[in-house]
Amino acid sequence: MADSLKCDLKSLSPLELFERVTEQGEKVRALKAGKAPKDEIDAAVRMLLSLKLSYKTTTGQDYRAGLPPKDLVLINNGTTKEEDEDLVDPWNVQTSNAKGVDYDKLIVRFGSSKIDTDLINRIERATGQKPHHFLRRGIFFSHRDMDQILDAYENKKSFYLYTGRGPSSQAMHVGHLIPFLFTKWLQEVFDVPLVIQLTDDEKYLWKDMTVEKAYEYAKENAKDIIACGFDINKTFIFSDLDYLGASPGVYKNIVKVQKHVTFNQVKGIFGFTDSDCIGKISFPAIQAAPSFSSSFPQIFNGKENIQCLIPCAIDQDPYFRMTRDVAPRIGQPKPALLHSVFFPALQGAQTKMSASDPNSSIFLTDTPKQIKTKINKHAFSGGRDTIEEHRKYGGNCDVDVSFMYLTFFLEDDDRLEQLKQAYTSGELLTGELKKVLIETMQPLVAAHQERRRQVTDEVVKQFMTPRKLAFEF
Amino acid sequence: MADSLKCDLKSLSPLELFERVTEQGEKVRALKAGKAPKDEIDAAVRMLLSLKLSYKTTTGQDYRAGLPPKDLVLINNGTTKEEDEDLVDPWNVQTSNAKGVDYDKLIVRFGSSKIDTDLINRIERATGQKPHHFLRRGIFFSHRDMDQILDAYENKKSFYLYTGRGPSSQAMHVGHLIPFLFTKWLQEVFDVPLVIQLTDDEKYLWKDMTVEKAYEYAKENAKDIIACGFDINKTFIFSDLDYLGASPGVYKNIVKVQKHVTFNQVKGIFGFTDSDCIGKISFPAIQAAPSFSSSFPQIFNGKENIQCLIPCAIDQDPYFRMTRDVAPRIGQPKPALLHSVFFPALQGAQTKMSASDPNSSIFLTDTPKQIKTKINKHAFSGGRDTIEEHRKYGGNCDVDVSFMYLTFFLEDDDRLEQLKQAYTSGELLTGELKKVLIETMQPLVAAHQERRRQVTDEVVKQFMTPRKLAFEF
Repeated sequence: MADSLKCDLKSLSPLELFERVTEQGEKVRALKAGKAPKDEIDAAVRMLLSLKLSYKTTTGQDYRAGLPPKDLVLINNGTTKEEDEDLVDPWNVQTSNAKGVDYDKLIVRFGSSKIDTDLINRIERATGQKPHHFLRRGIFFSHRDMDQILDAYENKKSFYLYTGRGPSSQAMHVGHLIPFLFTKWLQEVFDVPLVIQLTDDEKYLWKDMTVEKAYEYAKENAKDIIACGFDINKTFIFSDLDYLGASPGVYKNIVKVQKHVTFNQVKGIFGFTDSDCIGKISFPAIQAAPSFSSSFPQIFNGKENIQCLIPCAIDQDPYFRMTRDVAPRIGQPKPALLHSVFFPALQGAQTKMSASDPNSSIFLTDTPKQIKTKINKHAFSGGRDTIEEHRKYGGNCDVDVSFMYLTFFLEDDDRLEQLKQAYTSGELLTGELKKVLIETMQPLVAAHQERRRQVTDEVVKQFMTPRKLAFEF
Repeated sequence: MADSLKCDLKSLSPLELFERVTEQGEKVRALKAGKAPKDEIDAAVRMLLSLKLSYKTTTGQDYRAGLPPKDLVLINNGTTKEEDEDLVDPWNVQTSNAKGVDYDKLIVRFGSSKIDTDLINRIERATGQKPHHFLRRGIFFSHRDMDQILDAYENKKSFYLYTGRGPSSQAMHVGHLIPFLFTKWLQEVFDVPLVIQLTDDEKYLWKDMTVEKAYEYAKENAKDIIACGFDINKTFIFSDLDYLGASPGVYKNIVKVQKHVTFNQVKGIFGFTDSDCIGKISFPAIQAAPSFSSSFPQIFNGKENIQCLIPCAIDQDPYFRMTRDVAPRIGQPKPALLHSVFFPALQGAQTKMSASDPNSSIFLTDTPKQIKTKINKHAFSGGRDTIEEHRKYGGNCDVDVSFMYLTFFLEDDDRLEQLKQAYTSGELLTGELKKVLIETMQPLVAAHQERRRQVTDEVVKQFMTPRKLAFEF
């Protein structure tokens, strides 16, 4: 604690302050238990009180032993009312609102930045390409440091892309494709290399699943990812169970991150408890490490400090908030991020799709008939109860899942706008809107299945082999 | 918690019970906070009380939130008085007794077995070799399952050896050689392969040291280890920072161990706190993994479940108690162990030598003159205050560090016995005993230095290359 006296308490984060208070409290207890001289105990108590005051000033809350500050951003914004808030973390997405999570609020809570028209226009200028409809329609809605990526790119300094998937089952659903479809577009328009992490180790740790099964799912999922059309010369897909034991670069970065994150911090960020296994507790470092180019010496020819851009659903942001916090302390650039909204379940936008409920999703393995049945039977409608009412008052696109799905998968802007107007005015009935969605999804899924069939084990092996990618930095 | 109702509480370990009580306490709080129906809260409270009772029955102590049972063996033995006990864990060895740690008590506390004459005779019969003086003199004094190793060996079922070192500095001292000298003997007499782990990642995590420095120390220490004379065809030395990223086999075992050990458990075993970094918290799994032959597919040609025998100082036992607890749950054999006493500091046997205090140790880099000066100046003497008193009452070999060192390094049993009698009777003076030690250590260290000079970088590289070893299982 001698150091802490010298250190400026104001520069400490709420969690660091929390740890200081805890340590000092332990010290006072030890001094008292050891019957230390009175002046020594008094000095330690004064220090403890001063630390507690700093904690209160910074967090607006009293220090409570064993209860670290839960959401740093929340605290920093002075927002203390949590009850009405959407629950968003890597394992849960819950909201009481049928329109889905309030993303504008989430931007404020997470401390990220909105992707606004200016940024979209800049991307268009930098790439010379019409922005992807996921950008135009606010499906990728939030970012961290994308402006810096563009600054550098405009000065001929390139970057690499990193995204991933937790292979929890053999079959992926259409919602899982969102980050990959967007990443593929980014790879094309920026012409950059891409690494894709399959966190089979995470699935083994979190689920009742063997290592072998998790690895098998990783390879199966790789086929669906490859079927999105990634450039084999610019893309490296890796299973953690495979690659973490095949690259000293990535293990060194994992250990570096692990040295700079305490249990208190992961407890605050991810809600881990003392009963969680040590694998879960240290896992965040494994999702962090691919954000640093030195984790891929084969790809980047040993070149370090290449900037990383991570397109992902916003629920993955806690991992990368942690990564960005650690990065400068281990001499690495902070990764930039592009966040997407969640893909809604067929039953409504209150939660994201789940691979474990077959009716909550359209799977990439579904037949045209299954797709038709699922949409007709399960897609939550924003239409009225009777045709008469619908014709009179019109449908509500904000809560209609079929319309939401079309914003993801119907690329034609004019057509989508026509449908919106027709549905809102009552001209278009729910059944008719569903028919458009069925006719959009059936060929899309069938085409994916056809491309997937062409992905041989040999091709998977090539994508998953650590190697130099076709790019010079 | 539904599962816990079905499960037989008696089969749970104290730590598992502790976790159940903690979880149930959280559940009760959540139910109360959520204003759950009264009968539901009552049922949860009844369950909590029943769990607390089981905890008390098993541990003999009341459950106290946040305070997991610290030393399981201690509790199981009903020994609750901790004050007079020696402190022994991987980072601390402290005793108030000048004779050193009470090893018989430690065997009881740790729940290991004493290496008795019967076992030593069995080793002699099995190998056809005179037992090493470390065995004859009780320097390796405790074991776990060595009898099973011998049972199997007598039935032509072989095993492999695993030992290691934390490379905390460039220079090793003579105490560091003890496990290696003994392991070399075991390798020779049993004719078995050996893996040596250099935990440079551990040193990076625990010390103020860069990854590069830790790795450099690992390679330097490897030279000293190789200079002990290990068979290059049967020995694989690895740096964690290197090998963990070069073998999917070892990473898979690390993740498996990490899934089966909770933070509560490592808190209980190693005393970690919430302020410790997640790297420290998950590190025990990294020291555990080499206990399983599947961590070395190159060596064992993919063959799993080969029995492992670990010679180490007893302070490393907590890692392997944890490993032995996990092994059957991940389908692996429990490693067997041979425990050595600690090598005393020159200043006395109250603590083990420390690489950070140059005067506490004879370093392998010391000159003959430094060795002489250190022994004459710092070696704690069991002799009397005056020559007259010494001649009259004799010296005390039990606390004399020079004599202790001779038990480690003077191989001639008769000579050692003569010295003991002469010193105890007062015939031999402290200065004369020290002279024998100096004359023993100087050529020993010089010979080591000569052998070390012959260890080229190329030889280190060969030892550290994952490869098939000259052995068929």
